Amino acid sequence: MKKLINGVESVEEQMILGLVKSAPDKLRKLDEGNVVVRAQKKEGKVALVSGGGSGHEPAHGGFVGEGMLDAAVAGAVFTSPTPDKIFAGIQAVATDKGVLCVVKNYTGDVMNFEMAIDMAKDEDIEADYVVVNDDVAVKDSLYTTGRRGVAGTVLVHKIAGAKAEQGASLPEVKAVAEKVIANVRTMGMAISPCTVPAAGKPGFELAEDEVEIGIGIHGEPGTTREKLSTADETAKKLLDKILADIDFKGQEVVVMVNGMGATPLMELYVINNFVQDYLKEQGVKVYDTMVGNYMTSIEMAGFSLTLLRLDDEMKALYDAKADTPALKR
Amino acid sequence: MKKLINGVESVEEQMILGLVKSAPDKLRKLDEGNVVVRAQKKEGKVALVSGGGSGHEPAHGGFVGEGMLDAAVAGAVFTSPTPDKIFAGIQAVATDKGVLCVVKNYTGDVMNFEMAIDMAKDEDIEADYVVVNDDVAVKDSLYTTGRRGVAGTVLVHKIAGAKAEQGASLPEVKAVAEKVIANVRTMGMAISPCTVPAAGKPGFELAEDEVEIGIGIHGEPGTTREKLSTADETAKKLLDKILADIDFKGQEVVVMVNGMGATPLMELYVINNFVQDYLKEQGVKVYDTMVGNYMTSIEMAGFSLTLLRLDDEMKALYDAKADTPALKR
Repeated sequence: MKKLINGVESVEEQMILGLVKSAPDKLRKLDEGNVVVRAQKKEGKVALVSGGGSGHEPAHGGFVGEGMLDAAVAGAVFTSPTPDKIFAGIQAVATDKGVLCVVKNYTGDVMNFEMAIDMAKDEDIEADYVVVNDDVAVKDSLYTTGRRGVAGTVLVHKIAGAKAEQGASLPEVKAVAEKVIANVRTMGMAISPCTVPAAGKPGFELAEDEVEIGIGIHGEPGTTREKLSTADETAKKLLDKILADIDFKGQEVVVMVNGMGATPLMELYVINNFVQDYLKEQGVKVYDTMVGNYMTSIEMAGFSLTLLRLDDEMKALYDAKADTPALKR
Repeated sequence: MKKLINGVESVEEQMILGLVKSAPDKLRKLDEGNVVVRAQKKEGKVALVSGGGSGHEPAHGGFVGEGMLDAAVAGAVFTSPTPDKIFAGIQAVATDKGVLCVVKNYTGDVMNFEMAIDMAKDEDIEADYVVVNDDVAVKDSLYTTGRRGVAGTVLVHKIAGAKAEQGASLPEVKAVAEKVIANVRTMGMAISPCTVPAAGKPGFELAEDEVEIGIGIHGEPGTTREKLSTADETAKKLLDKILADIDFKGQEVVVMVNGMGATPLMELYVINNFVQDYLKEQGVKVYDTMVGNYMTSIEMAGFSLTLLRLDDEMKALYDAKADTPALKR
């Protein structure tokens, strides 16, 4: 295992500290654990809380800030944070307008967030949650019942975050989060795996000419193993699966071309070149495009494509101001 | 070679097209070649032009936009663009206030930009240039006389770009660019090499426990090959070399922790955690920190550290608005 770290035990905490120290006027780490919160608590708004295992940087700590999250709770790499840490995050940012948790659909995350919300309710904090399940690759997986939650989660952070920032009520913020979830779809692939520091070896192995289609974001293998093809053919395969899932024709969409961590921007741009042409051909109108590393799997090489069908409300919220380390608008 | 591309001949053009299509209202590609310009030409300001070989994405096309560059000219991977393409870029964005080119110190780039500037002068375009040489790793290299120009170039784009956007004269914009160059220092390292598509194999090879210290950004080997050490020890080694070059003590600085293309953000944050503590210990005051992929070497894994000593003018220009695909403020 070749990594620029100081030890497998320290990696999550040092990473969170390093993130917070990159923006010390805007972010703060809780003493209770690897929980990133805004440096100045904002009252009078629904607090938006997310999190999950580490290894998806910049998700989720990099999305804490104005217009997006109030808190992000990081577990060990690819391991759900425990309920007490999630509760600490909720408690630190809770306002009298309540708390909405945005949870990626992985069994451990859903369970632990539910327990933390129960703990919050015991303390008279109004708390609720939504579960993101944008991955069209699999119905059920090793880690999840139902579709997995992956890169589309960032768009839930963005749009529900903007709604919360405007002072909307908890049911209103939840409703718009659910609307994003209903309209967002993702699929990913990898050309090389990643290594969980504590495991010391890759989650799977690929030959020089092999790729994994339909990977999740926890280093697990995908749904099919295939020969390496061109960028265009690979992107078409993912897009076709997404376009078959819900009807995007004639709709305005946000496109996210997301790197899995070690994919050079050169390749993401080459992929985007095809994606834009193909969507036009398919009658899908692109409202905006994001290209970069938003929801990664440590140093996995590969990418995911995300499409979000927009309406006027989502469009305005997508365009609203955001000031976070990983997303500014 | 395992890459998500469609062929070694098409990679540069498809990449530039993919970048432009990610922000079609803001960017445009010239028909003459792989030149990215702002979609709306801005008059009444010095036009800022940069460029160089491809493979450093998001540099330089990702920095075209309000507050930074007016044009970026991309050559083949790690190969200087030819003078006629650079001239096409200059011609497309030139205003009556003139053009300033920001050139990284590599022999081919300097020669070709000089020739393009001569061509521009023949057409009565007022044009000048600055050469960035921030890399403290080597005095002379295989590719350069004097120090190489690397990640610090992005800070020249930012600060000179802001000055130009304010309507300053060509000598004023050049003077502030020169001031950034005099005060910026960088050093980098790699834990794995990169592969130029047309070459098909890595520029150098490293054993599982080896790293290259003092790498440039063209896939060339570094100054010394060493055993893989901790993130903290590695960062200390680079910082000590930078801090010994010019006096940063008691100064306010911008810190850039730059990924070389395939480095996960997790590792960059771990490195930043040390960098911030060590600079404080050394009496260097951090004004702002950038962590991410700004000047890469395709899919090289590793990082560079950049420090820029600030004065009040540079601080204000650093903080000024920027709206580009790869840097927003």
